[in-house]
Amino acid sequence: MPRFKLTIEYDGMPFVGWQRQAEDRSVQIAVEDAIERFTGERVTIGVAGRTDAGVHALGQVAHADLEKDWPTDTVRDAINAHLRPEPVAVLSAERVDQTFDARFSAKGRHYLYRIVNRRAPLTVEADRAWLANKPLDAGRMAAAAQRLIGTHDFTTFRSVDCQAKSPVRTLDRLDVSRSGELVEVRASARSFLHNQVRSMVGSLKLVGEGKWTAEDLVAALEARDRAACGPVAPACGLYLSAVDY
Amino acid sequence: MPRFKLTIEYDGMPFVGWQRQAEDRSVQIAVEDAIERFTGERVTIGVAGRTDAGVHALGQVAHADLEKDWPTDTVRDAINAHLRPEPVAVLSAERVDQTFDARFSAKGRHYLYRIVNRRAPLTVEADRAWLANKPLDAGRMAAAAQRLIGTHDFTTFRSVDCQAKSPVRTLDRLDVSRSGELVEVRASARSFLHNQVRSMVGSLKLVGEGKWTAEDLVAALEARDRAACGPVAPACGLYLSAVDY
Repeated sequence: MPRFKLTIEYDGMPFVGWQRQAEDRSVQIAVEDAIERFTGERVTIGVAGRTDAGVHALGQVAHADLEKDWPTDTVRDAINAHLRPEPVAVLSAERVDQTFDARFSAKGRHYLYRIVNRRAPLTVEADRAWLANKPLDAGRMAAAAQRLIGTHDFTTFRSVDCQAKSPVRTLDRLDVSRSGELVEVRASARSFLHNQVRSMVGSLKLVGEGKWTAEDLVAALEARDRAACGPVAPACGLYLSAVDY
Repeated sequence: MPRFKLTIEYDGMPFVGWQRQAEDRSVQIAVEDAIERFTGERVTIGVAGRTDAGVHALGQVAHADLEKDWPTDTVRDAINAHLRPEPVAVLSAERVDQTFDARFSAKGRHYLYRIVNRRAPLTVEADRAWLANKPLDAGRMAAAAQRLIGTHDFTTFRSVDCQAKSPVRTLDRLDVSRSGELVEVRASARSFLHNQVRSMVGSLKLVGEGKWTAEDLVAALEARDRAACGPVAPACGLYLSAVDY
C-alpha cells in the first residue's frame, strides 16, 4: 500500500493530546476520522511526537497507508476539507516508501517554547504562550541553558509517567532569545523524554527570575531526581515545530 | 478629576467592535464595566480608534477620568483583574492632564495586517490572520503599495458607512514584507477612513495574485469610486498596533 508522510499543524488547546484515548477528542482521531471520510478506509497513523493535551504543533509528522496512490495535493486538500472545523491542518503530503516510519525514522525533533514576559494578562496570545509576569533575564537563561547541552541522565527533567527505558538523552540545542516581551526557547534532540522540554523551561524560568543560578540548574540535573525540577511549564506555550528525517 | 491614559490590547473576535452598542458585547463596555467594578464609578472612556467587529488591538489607547489619583500600576492591575475572563488587557496606565484626548490628541495611528499565504487552513492562527491560498508576490505588492503613499482622496478605499467629512487622508506608510508564509502589511497615518486599511489590503492582494497591476491600483484610487475597490480584507487579520501622541 502507498505510504504518505503528512506534515501537520494544530492548535492543541481543544484536544486531550495527540494520542487516541477512548472517546476523548484527540488530534489522532481527528485526522483518522478525516481520512475515513475521504477514502472510506479506517487507518491507524503513526506519529513522530505524541504531544500532550494543550501542546501545539507547527510541524508534527505522521504516516498513513492508503489503498490508492493518490496525488499528494489531493491527499492534503481532501484531508483538510474533512478536518473542518477542527483546528488541525495538513501542511503537506508526500509519498514515502514502506521503510519510512514517522516515529522511528526521525533523526531530530525541534520544539519551540513561547513565554510572554509582562504584567498584563494575555489576550491574542491566550493559550498560545506562557505568561511570566516577573521580569526574566533572558541572557542568564540562555547562558544557563548551555549547561544542559550534551548527553545526560535527564531523570530530573522527565515526567514520573515517562515510559522511556532510559533517562539518558542527547540535547543538541537549548537556545533562549528575547524579542520585546517575547522570550523563546528552542530545543532540539533526536528524541526527548516525556515532559522534558516543559520541565527544562520551568527550571530555566527560575534562573531568569534570579531564584536559581546556572549552578543550581546543573545541580538539579546532576541530582537525577524528579523532585529537584522546578515547576513544569504549562502546555500552552509548547510547539512541536519540526521533525528531521 | 485625574485623567488616565490606558494602552489596551485585545482579541477582537468575540466583540462587536470597540464601540458600545446597546446590549452587545463591545470592548468599550468590557473596560467600562471593569472600571466600575474597580472604583464603583460609571465612566465613559474616549478612544483613539473605534475598531470594527473582529479587529484586534496590540496598542489601542483610551482615556478615563477617575475620582481618585490612584497609582498607575494599581489602575492597570485592578482593571485587568476585573476584566477577567474577557480577552482584553490594559498594558499600561499613565497619568495625563485634562488636555489629553485619546482620539483628538493622536498624531499617528499604526495598523498591522497579517496574511498567511498557503494552501492549508489556519489552526493556531485562526481568527488571527487572513488565509490567502493563492501564491502572493509580496514584492509586487510592496512596490504597488508605494503608489498610495501621500495625500489623496481615498473614496475608493473607504466604507460607504464612513462618517468622516472629508475622504482626503495622508498615508505615511504602507509597507509589505514577507517572512516565510506570513505576509505583513504595515500602514501608518495621522488618521484613517472607515475600512481604509482593509480596503487597501484587499486591493493589494489582487496585485499580489497578479490580477491587478500597480497601474490598476492607481486607477482604482483615482476613480474615487467605492465600486473600484477590490474585495475588502476580513477583520480577523487587522491589528491596531500603536498610536502616537
